[in-house]
Amino acid sequence: MRTRRSGCPINLTLETFGDRWSLIILRDAMFGGRRRSFRSFLNESTEGIASNILSDRLQRLTASGLLTRAADPGHKQRIVYSLTESAIELVPLMAFMGSWGIRHALPSFELSQRAQVLEDGGPQLWDEFMDELRHIHLGLPAPGVSALAKMQAAYEASLSE
Amino acid sequence: MRTRRSGCPINLTLETFGDRWSLIILRDAMFGGRRRSFRSFLNESTEGIASNILSDRLQRLTASGLLTRAADPGHKQRIVYSLTESAIELVPLMAFMGSWGIRHALPSFELSQRAQVLEDGGPQLWDEFMDELRHIHLGLPAPGVSALAKMQAAYEASLSE
Repeated sequence: MRTRRSGCPINLTLETFGDRWSLIILRDAMFGGRRRSFRSFLNESTEGIASNILSDRLQRLTASGLLTRAADPGHKQRIVYSLTESAIELVPLMAFMGSWGIRHALPSFELSQRAQVLEDGGPQLWDEFMDELRHIHLGLPAPGVSALAKMQAAYEASLSE
Repeated sequence: MRTRRSGCPINLTLETFGDRWSLIILRDAMFGGRRRSFRSFLNESTEGIASNILSDRLQRLTASGLLTRAADPGHKQRIVYSLTESAIELVPLMAFMGSWGIRHALPSFELSQRAQVLEDGGPQLWDEFMDELRHIHLGLPAPGVSALAKMQAAYEASLSE
C-alpha cells in the first residue's frame, strides 16, 4: 500500500489513479472494446505513450487494483489486461472529462464524437456502457445494447462528413 | 499553449489539469470557501504540498486559464487566487472523485463528510455550489443557499460523534 498523504476521499482517488498516463491507459482499455496487451496499448496510443512509462503505469494500475493481468486464452504466451469493477466504475469520470474537454479544450471534431454520445446518453448510457465493460472484462452476461457500437457509429459517421 | 499530444477531449482535459497536485490545489480553492493566497494554500494543505510544487502548479493553472491572480483588495501586497468559470465547472468531477474515493479508497470518516453531502445532494446541490463559487470567485450575486455551509455542518457534526 502506498503512503496516504491524507484520508480525504478526493486525495485518495487521486493517489489511486491521479496521473495523466494512468488515465490515458484506462481510457484506452475502456473505449478499445476488448482486453489489451502491452503491444496494443503501445501501438494504438494516439498520444504516443513511451514503452517505459506504459510498463510502469501498467504495474501501478495492477498494484492499485484497477487492472488485472492474465494469459490470453487464445495466445498463451501473451498477457492481456482487464479492467476491474472499480475501474469500470470510473466511466462517469471519463464521460465528465470528455464533456469538459468538448466545452473548454478545443478538441478535434472526430475524436469528440464518442464523448458527445456519452454526454447525450447521460447516466443511462453510462450504465449500459459499464455493463458492456463487465461483459468484456469480467465475463458477465452481455447487455442487450452496445454503447461501444453507438460510439463507433458516431465516430465513423463523422469521418465521412 | 502547450503541445497537444492528440485532439481527444479526454486527453486535452488531462493535459489541462491532469496532475494530482493541480487537482489538490483546485480542491482547496473550491472547498476553502474564499480566495486563497500562496501562504494559505501552503499552510492549510492537508497533504503537505511542498512550496516549489505549489509555486509551479499555481503558475501552470493560471497559464491554463483555471485560476486568475490579483492583489487582495484588503492587503494590496498580497496576491490572491480565484477560480475561473471553467475551473468552477469541475465541481461535478470533484463530486465524482469524492464518491469514488468513499466507495473504493477507505477514506477517513470526518474527511468524507463533505463528499457525502455532495453525493447525497446530487446535481442540484452541485449547481448551488457552483453558484456559490461564482459569487466568491467571480463576484456574481450570492445564491439563497450555501452548499459550503451544508458541507461544513456535516463535517463539524462528524467531529462530535
